[in-house]
Amino acid sequence: MDELATRRAAEPVSPEDGRADGPATANGAPEPWGALGSLAEPARRAARALAAATSAVKDAALRGWADALEARVPEIVEANTVDMDRARAGGVSAAILDRLLIDEPRTGQMADGLRQVAALKDPVGIVLDGWTLPNGLRVEKVRVPLGVVGVIYEGRPNVTVDAAGLGVKAGNAVLLRGSRVAERSNAVLVRILQDASEAAGLPAAAVQSVPPTRESARDMMRARGLIDLLIPRGGADLIETTVRESHVPVIETGVGNCHVYVDAAANLGKALAILVNAKVQRPGVCNAAETFLVHRTVAEAFVPRALEAMAANGVDVFGDEAVRALDRTGRVEPATDDEYGAEFLDLKIAARVVGSLDEAIEHISTFGTKHTEAIVTEDYDAARRFVDGVDAAAVMVNASTRFTDGGEFGMGAEVGIFI
Amino acid sequence: MDELATRRAAEPVSPEDGRADGPATANGAPEPWGALGSLAEPARRAARALAAATSAVKDAALRGWADALEARVPEIVEANTVDMDRARAGGVSAAILDRLLIDEPRTGQMADGLRQVAALKDPVGIVLDGWTLPNGLRVEKVRVPLGVVGVIYEGRPNVTVDAAGLGVKAGNAVLLRGSRVAERSNAVLVRILQDASEAAGLPAAAVQSVPPTRESARDMMRARGLIDLLIPRGGADLIETTVRESHVPVIETGVGNCHVYVDAAANLGKALAILVNAKVQRPGVCNAAETFLVHRTVAEAFVPRALEAMAANGVDVFGDEAVRALDRTGRVEPATDDEYGAEFLDLKIAARVVGSLDEAIEHISTFGTKHTEAIVTEDYDAARRFVDGVDAAAVMVNASTRFTDGGEFGMGAEVGIFI
Repeated sequence: MDELATRRAAEPVSPEDGRADGPATANGAPEPWGALGSLAEPARRAARALAAATSAVKDAALRGWADALEARVPEIVEANTVDMDRARAGGVSAAILDRLLIDEPRTGQMADGLRQVAALKDPVGIVLDGWTLPNGLRVEKVRVPLGVVGVIYEGRPNVTVDAAGLGVKAGNAVLLRGSRVAERSNAVLVRILQDASEAAGLPAAAVQSVPPTRESARDMMRARGLIDLLIPRGGADLIETTVRESHVPVIETGVGNCHVYVDAAANLGKALAILVNAKVQRPGVCNAAETFLVHRTVAEAFVPRALEAMAANGVDVFGDEAVRALDRTGRVEPATDDEYGAEFLDLKIAARVVGSLDEAIEHISTFGTKHTEAIVTEDYDAARRFVDGVDAAAVMVNASTRFTDGGEFGMGAEVGIFI
Repeated sequence: MDELATRRAAEPVSPEDGRADGPATANGAPEPWGALGSLAEPARRAARALAAATSAVKDAALRGWADALEARVPEIVEANTVDMDRARAGGVSAAILDRLLIDEPRTGQMADGLRQVAALKDPVGIVLDGWTLPNGLRVEKVRVPLGVVGVIYEGRPNVTVDAAGLGVKAGNAVLLRGSRVAERSNAVLVRILQDASEAAGLPAAAVQSVPPTRESARDMMRARGLIDLLIPRGGADLIETTVRESHVPVIETGVGNCHVYVDAAANLGKALAILVNAKVQRPGVCNAAETFLVHRTVAEAFVPRALEAMAANGVDVFGDEAVRALDRTGRVEPATDDEYGAEFLDLKIAARVVGSLDEAIEHISTFGTKHTEAIVTEDYDAARRFVDGVDAAAVMVNASTRFTDGGEFGMGAEVGIFI
């Protein structure tokens, strides 16, 4: 209809008809895939070969990758040293340098990761559901590969190997667009995987690297008909930009403002152990707790113990008035909506006393990011009301938010959170 | 990373943090949802109420809607008459006028559709998978509602009722943005559903209509944190624009360039019946066949019969040289890539003779749209190679492409194709 013709006139017509040979624009001119032009046709062909590959072939290739990485450590370290030197000269922080580093032990970890992925059950070909209709038609719903998966990521070169392994295990060709800071390291890693793929009878183009130019990330987001799924793996800006700009479906990962709610019927010893684990075990990750909520009937018994435990672990607390009234540490700062809305990723936590389970759910609904939410309670009905009332990818009962993880759940490896 | 900061400077910062009370921009100012401003908070609240509603309450509400529609036919017809008169005065085509019309029988059909949806099993709360970990943690994967579902659609006002019914059945609040041409009809339908929702104990805002302005569709595509899923239902332009522009996840529906491949081992009688059904039964829909491919060993036996059957059904055929050499009807035009790439949605079909199953798969991979592809064969291995080698939402063996349909598959009603 007329009022729906909202396409921007200035925007180029992007590829859209899904042809393997690169689609034509409306006027019939060939449409290149921008920076991806030379990668497109090999990626689509590789995707078809991988979709048809048996588990035995794919798993042997992954084990071959692992062996090749370990056999070619000197090449990897040499390229990585160039990246490291350039990064150091560019004044990159020590934290980023540490993430960038690849040495022999880290190569061994990447190789072991591939061997673990090779040992997982093949997700392709699983019959998820099936039935026979009254007319005799047999229907089966079967899990199939995605096709070409694009990954845009930041500093860590190990993502190159991890993402390639998971992508190929699941029968996909992978286009990897890493950071400029790791350009040499990523190029060598991809070359090794390509050589080993060919040795294992898979196309070299099962894994390809996309040059880390300013345009290439945008070109990936525009590559409808070439890339079937895009996964941004990195900070909030990268994820936000990808979600906004992409014409290709995106798996949005990561931001976790997770809560631990200590119910009126909580076992307080359990609550304390869960809270400490959820906040302290690894504060820089998305499934760490960022706020705890305490039912007012147990506030007097629980809040002082919790504040002492936080202080003992070096955690700064931001509390509401009720929390501050129970503070014996003298360290609790006032909490505002900024703290309740923050993903600290640090040894900081917000705290609030609530009058009811519903008030806890309301708080989580207002400030949560739908990642992981936990209740601590011995009351079956409260647990059920919390699980039903909270909208999050994972809802925990008497367990730490830190359990939200493919490995912990027994689901195997992951890139991003696919629950 | 620096090179990933690709956000357009001119683009406004959109809502993004998922808060129920409307998010703040970076400078703390409230961010309205554009044309959706007044609908946002009621929609989020309704979504929470619907997520917690039992199947009994939701199904009773749908049956209440059905009764209310039938009870208020005069109001509906009155509003629809205004839309029809205005459309007629505006020179709208007879086909669109027919789609726009609502009378008593069509109201009855909408009501019956709601009663059928009410009778389906509730998808919410189904435990899809579950296990217990060695550490005792019990894991369950449970199907939950999406939240707020937006639907952008074109002329047919019955979509208002169908989409609302499926959305609410699945525990979602629904924002409906119909066409300006059906504005009065849609407004009355939504009012009736809202009144009946309240009577059934659900929030009126379970279903809300978005004004059909130029801006409102764009605002829905930008409504991250308010709308959890957007479904464009209409022509290729609407779908294309929504996929490109939306920051919200989109279910892309519809385009079907479907093939019927007649294998060397085909039962030719079966092949003819399938081809005629796939092309002729309803040519204007996305699961109709648009090309047939014939293995060269059966071309001489099959192509003349197929061409006669097409001619007898008024179907125009575009064939390659091999097909044209077997043409006794004298009506077959030469086929180019334009015909092989076309979704005719009409009594037209392209045809080609292929040298092998692989060549058929290659043709489908080049020109297909991954909707539905069919092979006709009595050879088990050929069937299996086709099913494994073709990438499409549905792959048929000895069945018409027309079977791809929620109802035909025994999956119930659908908005778009959710396979």
